[in-house]
Amino acid sequence: MDNTAGKRPTVKDVARLAGVSQGTVSNALSGMRGVDPETRQRIDQAIATLGYVPNLAARRMRTGLTNTIAVMTSMPAAVSAGSSRLGFLMEIAASAAIHALDYNSALVLVPPVADPAVALRHVAMDGAIVIEPQRDDAFLSLLKHRGVPVVVIGEPPASHPSGGDLPWVDLHYTRTAELLLSHLLEQGARRIALILGTSSRASQSTTEVIYQAWMLLRGIPPCVIRVPETEGEEGAYQATRYLLTNNPDVDAIFVPVDAFATGAMRALRDEGRTVPDDVRVVTRYDGLRAREERPALTAIDLHLDQVAALATRLLMDLIAGKEIQQVTEGPLPSLVARGSSQD
Amino acid sequence: MDNTAGKRPTVKDVARLAGVSQGTVSNALSGMRGVDPETRQRIDQAIATLGYVPNLAARRMRTGLTNTIAVMTSMPAAVSAGSSRLGFLMEIAASAAIHALDYNSALVLVPPVADPAVALRHVAMDGAIVIEPQRDDAFLSLLKHRGVPVVVIGEPPASHPSGGDLPWVDLHYTRTAELLLSHLLEQGARRIALILGTSSRASQSTTEVIYQAWMLLRGIPPCVIRVPETEGEEGAYQATRYLLTNNPDVDAIFVPVDAFATGAMRALRDEGRTVPDDVRVVTRYDGLRAREERPALTAIDLHLDQVAALATRLLMDLIAGKEIQQVTEGPLPSLVARGSSQD
Repeated sequence: MDNTAGKRPTVKDVARLAGVSQGTVSNALSGMRGVDPETRQRIDQAIATLGYVPNLAARRMRTGLTNTIAVMTSMPAAVSAGSSRLGFLMEIAASAAIHALDYNSALVLVPPVADPAVALRHVAMDGAIVIEPQRDDAFLSLLKHRGVPVVVIGEPPASHPSGGDLPWVDLHYTRTAELLLSHLLEQGARRIALILGTSSRASQSTTEVIYQAWMLLRGIPPCVIRVPETEGEEGAYQATRYLLTNNPDVDAIFVPVDAFATGAMRALRDEGRTVPDDVRVVTRYDGLRAREERPALTAIDLHLDQVAALATRLLMDLIAGKEIQQVTEGPLPSLVARGSSQD
Repeated sequence: MDNTAGKRPTVKDVARLAGVSQGTVSNALSGMRGVDPETRQRIDQAIATLGYVPNLAARRMRTGLTNTIAVMTSMPAAVSAGSSRLGFLMEIAASAAIHALDYNSALVLVPPVADPAVALRHVAMDGAIVIEPQRDDAFLSLLKHRGVPVVVIGEPPASHPSGGDLPWVDLHYTRTAELLLSHLLEQGARRIALILGTSSRASQSTTEVIYQAWMLLRGIPPCVIRVPETEGEEGAYQATRYLLTNNPDVDAIFVPVDAFATGAMRALRDEGRTVPDDVRVVTRYDGLRAREERPALTAIDLHLDQVAALATRLLMDLIAGKEIQQVTEGPLPSLVARGSSQD
């Protein structure tokens, strides 16, 4: 384990050098009970001086805690990750990793693979952040089965069998849809099509409800196309070409899934339509795809770093056995207007 | 733990249902020994049917393995993460998480915080991927102290006390510098300045050596400015303004650190210099910052997803006790020429 001579330092040694009780050292190490900053610093110093390494496996056997939380999404890699593997999931993971540290916890990144059971088989965790689950989300079912505390980011689908009472952070789906639709209407769009995924996520169903209501109110014939998320960019490309052929007077496309927006933009180019002059395009997640597109895509700043900080804090409270409210307001989303929708 | 009645299913139950030995189930679960896909599928099915949950803490006590690898960098958050928290570290983490799964391992994301000892205190791991360490890198020292197997991404600094014999994946620093310098010269640049960080990373020292040699060979007076990485974008902004005041005939700036490049671009705008007409700018990492800049920055595709896959495989071999060579060739970097350096 170590190439220094002599026996391995113990909690007892750390406590003696720091001039505190062993219980205080345990509290500082576990993060479960508060230790004042000055004492904590003395303990840290003693740990550094002695080269103390906690026996994590033994402690985990004893406490039942792993000091690990996990973050995951069942959104297929085709839309959650994409070519550069950066995006929604990673933005939340990065922020959650930093905030988990305040609670002495490490963050495990569960990659978006096809089989959640395989992805979770070897992940020990005290709790999990699940991003935008769908109805019958396999991750939620597995976590429930294991008895793992969960905080959801985004509203869970209404009838989720294992999710009816899960705490969640509100991403404000209604407001998001309204921001984008009102922006398109202000810019003069009159024939707005909506391209959605086929999964049963609340972000999708809420967006469709708002869209249908707004179109109805303005006497605009609604046009909704659904593309399976697993089809990714190419599926949206095909759907957009089909849309333009059958509805040639479309002057705006609302594409919440950013990977779909990339496909829609390519279809518009191939069909010889100019963005934004002929057709305006807006998406939801303001990630790499939205910013890299030419013209860059109008999108929504969801303030995901704040959302992740909030979800992490809620999860830690839940793990510590505290009462938390079922719905927590996330930061309000804001419009980032760009060249894809305004002249 | 579980709300189903009866006693918790065991490995024995899984083995019986799958029609294999308990040892085969153990091998499938640990990932340490090969199990053929057909058998593996039968075992997975039995696990799903029974709702078997491995007792990870107990297994970890027994085997000493955590089935977790960690990824980390000592590069300060000011340059490794930045405002949107996406970048080099996260691109590698995302790819490593996916590939770790092939070895039944989870990936822990160690966030770039000021104190590596704090960051690692609660991370149990079988091995670690350390990204571009500096001399006396605190992460490397801590990992050595714990006896954790390590694979480094990028050449470690020559004289690292705990890193002389660490295996590493070559990121081709020489070729990267040459690609960018030859591109600038081809584009007509004759007064090329170099803005580097102050940390003792091999990427920095190699870049400076190549730059000095190339300038000497062409009779161009070299101009190198060093900015502490912790100063981030603002530090590079100040340095660039200073550079332009004192060397008004500079017609190109080579800024390997992308956060610095963002600062340099802002300084150029504030000084009224047009990019690329007055001054050409190139950076190294082809991330969000490079692509978002206007004009977008010429950069290098380091093929980080392949690099991360390679590092993960090497680390798993190392953990399994296999011999691995000290230096492994990473994919060759390629130039991504953009508006910041060409007309």
